[in-house]
Amino acid sequence: MQEEPYIVIMAGGIGSRFWPYSRNDRPKQFLDVLGTGRTLLQMTFDRLKEISSPDKVFVVTNKTYFDLVKEQLPELDDKQVLSEPLRRNTATCIAYASYKINKIDPKAIILVAPADHLITQENKFRLAIEKAIIGAKMEGRLITMGIKPNRPETGYGYIQYLEKAGEEIFKVKTFIEKPNVKLAKTFLDSGDFVWNSGMFVWKVSSLISAYEKYMPDVAEVFNEGEEFLGNEGESEFIVKAYSLLKNISIDSGIMEQSDQVYVIPADFGWSDLGSWKSLFELKKKDRKNNVIEGNVILYDTENSYIKVNGDKLVVVQGLDNYLINETDNVILICKLDAEKKFREFVANAKKKGKDFI
Amino acid sequence: MQEEPYIVIMAGGIGSRFWPYSRNDRPKQFLDVLGTGRTLLQMTFDRLKEISSPDKVFVVTNKTYFDLVKEQLPELDDKQVLSEPLRRNTATCIAYASYKINKIDPKAIILVAPADHLITQENKFRLAIEKAIIGAKMEGRLITMGIKPNRPETGYGYIQYLEKAGEEIFKVKTFIEKPNVKLAKTFLDSGDFVWNSGMFVWKVSSLISAYEKYMPDVAEVFNEGEEFLGNEGESEFIVKAYSLLKNISIDSGIMEQSDQVYVIPADFGWSDLGSWKSLFELKKKDRKNNVIEGNVILYDTENSYIKVNGDKLVVVQGLDNYLINETDNVILICKLDAEKKFREFVANAKKKGKDFI
Repeated sequence: MQEEPYIVIMAGGIGSRFWPYSRNDRPKQFLDVLGTGRTLLQMTFDRLKEISSPDKVFVVTNKTYFDLVKEQLPELDDKQVLSEPLRRNTATCIAYASYKINKIDPKAIILVAPADHLITQENKFRLAIEKAIIGAKMEGRLITMGIKPNRPETGYGYIQYLEKAGEEIFKVKTFIEKPNVKLAKTFLDSGDFVWNSGMFVWKVSSLISAYEKYMPDVAEVFNEGEEFLGNEGESEFIVKAYSLLKNISIDSGIMEQSDQVYVIPADFGWSDLGSWKSLFELKKKDRKNNVIEGNVILYDTENSYIKVNGDKLVVVQGLDNYLINETDNVILICKLDAEKKFREFVANAKKKGKDFI
Repeated sequence: MQEEPYIVIMAGGIGSRFWPYSRNDRPKQFLDVLGTGRTLLQMTFDRLKEISSPDKVFVVTNKTYFDLVKEQLPELDDKQVLSEPLRRNTATCIAYASYKINKIDPKAIILVAPADHLITQENKFRLAIEKAIIGAKMEGRLITMGIKPNRPETGYGYIQYLEKAGEEIFKVKTFIEKPNVKLAKTFLDSGDFVWNSGMFVWKVSSLISAYEKYMPDVAEVFNEGEEFLGNEGESEFIVKAYSLLKNISIDSGIMEQSDQVYVIPADFGWSDLGSWKSLFELKKKDRKNNVIEGNVILYDTENSYIKVNGDKLVVVQGLDNYLINETDNVILICKLDAEKKFREFVANAKKKGKDFI
């Protein structure tokens, strides 16, 4: 690879979609959800260190997860783990990392990636990133990685692209948030829609220009505090900066505003692992299409995902398309495709006690 | 009441029908299944001590439950708790208690009752027992308490009775084990069938005559060992006696053989509490006909019984007619009416480890 990008891994999520397996004190990115012996954060790091040097990797996370990141990625120096005092969504998170990198190397190219996605075809991934790095060299361009859709998924955001702007790089026409099934089918058939993966490549200078243009409040805060980045006052400055900034995603704040956004459609075995169902799809099934993790006896049960602590015996009879998960002090039994109910599950569980979430 | 009968409470069962709530080391009779603060054994004792003096009560149980009986019924003297070395069914259990009582009082009338049934109308129960005691005074008569059926239950044994032999005492024509639904409906309609409650009243001399006639091996063993009953060698003798005797019920061994069997049809709010479903029927329901015991949040769930340890949160979505029980190291999720599967559940759980049953 001709040039090593800086890498920003976003690892601040407290995703509730794998609740009760994922918990406030151990969100999805810190779990070995695939049973490979490596957590999603570790798998993301392993994948990205093939693209750049480990010393160019930054992980942004909530301050409560700092120790967890250090424990799971001992290769990282303390200063490569950026602690967020509050949850302020991706626009703020990416700004923090980018202004910091800008001070180290104003010519840097940055790859931004979530910590909790799955990519199964790493060679294809690397090739796509190489293309993105080349494309990003043109000043001002903001490149997002699009995933060629293979089903009319209603849980993802879609990106529609326009004319070809170069070798496999397309100008983005519009972003569409989670569509209904009918619309999703139209997108799938039309051929000019891809899924929004939340992975980005750009020159740090292109991004900072975009902040100045579309999110001047963010630019102002970080310009004023630039002197503290990498220095003693950084953490104090960041606490103040985060308290001033709004909770807004990079998609809303910049990508949907800018006319310099390009997409690289790719296909590298991507999943956002956004639900128990998506995890179920990836796992090995028994003869009746059940995923079994733990000490389980099934009768007349099919298409179900049963995951329990190894010490416990779980006997299940007469279920089809259910999830059963026991983690610590919570047992959840629900339809395997109940992902839209999880916010409610977690909100109501919290009312019973914060130890349950 | 004109005469105080001796009372034999059979408390040796290791019933698997409430598994995993009931366990080998704490079977149903030792559980407070109704949440009244008293276990079924204690409720049975409370009910029967209204009929006789506590010092005329004997509890027969497996030797492993001796301490449990003493703990739950501290009113009893050690010698009122008869320890069985092996499970040898009701014919042997009743013989042991009866020969022991015979030695104390050969004119005794005995009431035999299971420890794990429910009776809600205790006055009616006492009246029925009074009638049975009067009826049992005629030498040779073996009286069984019949329950007037209110539904075509297929889980119980039935007793068909013949001509009236006296005030509300009927001669038994035949015993029928668990019938199919069609047959059960015929029985219900015919009016001369009652459920077999497993409660008996007789003079000890009538019963011993019956053992001599129909189960001479039992009579022989206990006649030979009579000198040890109530004396030092009792426990040693019983170990030997039980090893010699067959596993056979009093119904098969005597009641179905004798032509001196009578029944008193009664109606005192009886349930054998033979399944989770029967327990469910007795309990208070929420608006969606669920029984909830524990820290539970339900969504779209009805006609279900959820019973879990109080410390745990259980979230359930989208179930109808299910049982969920977590007890210690086992979680069971099955149809609420899956009672015919429980032998299989427990047998297979045992293969996973004897700590699970």
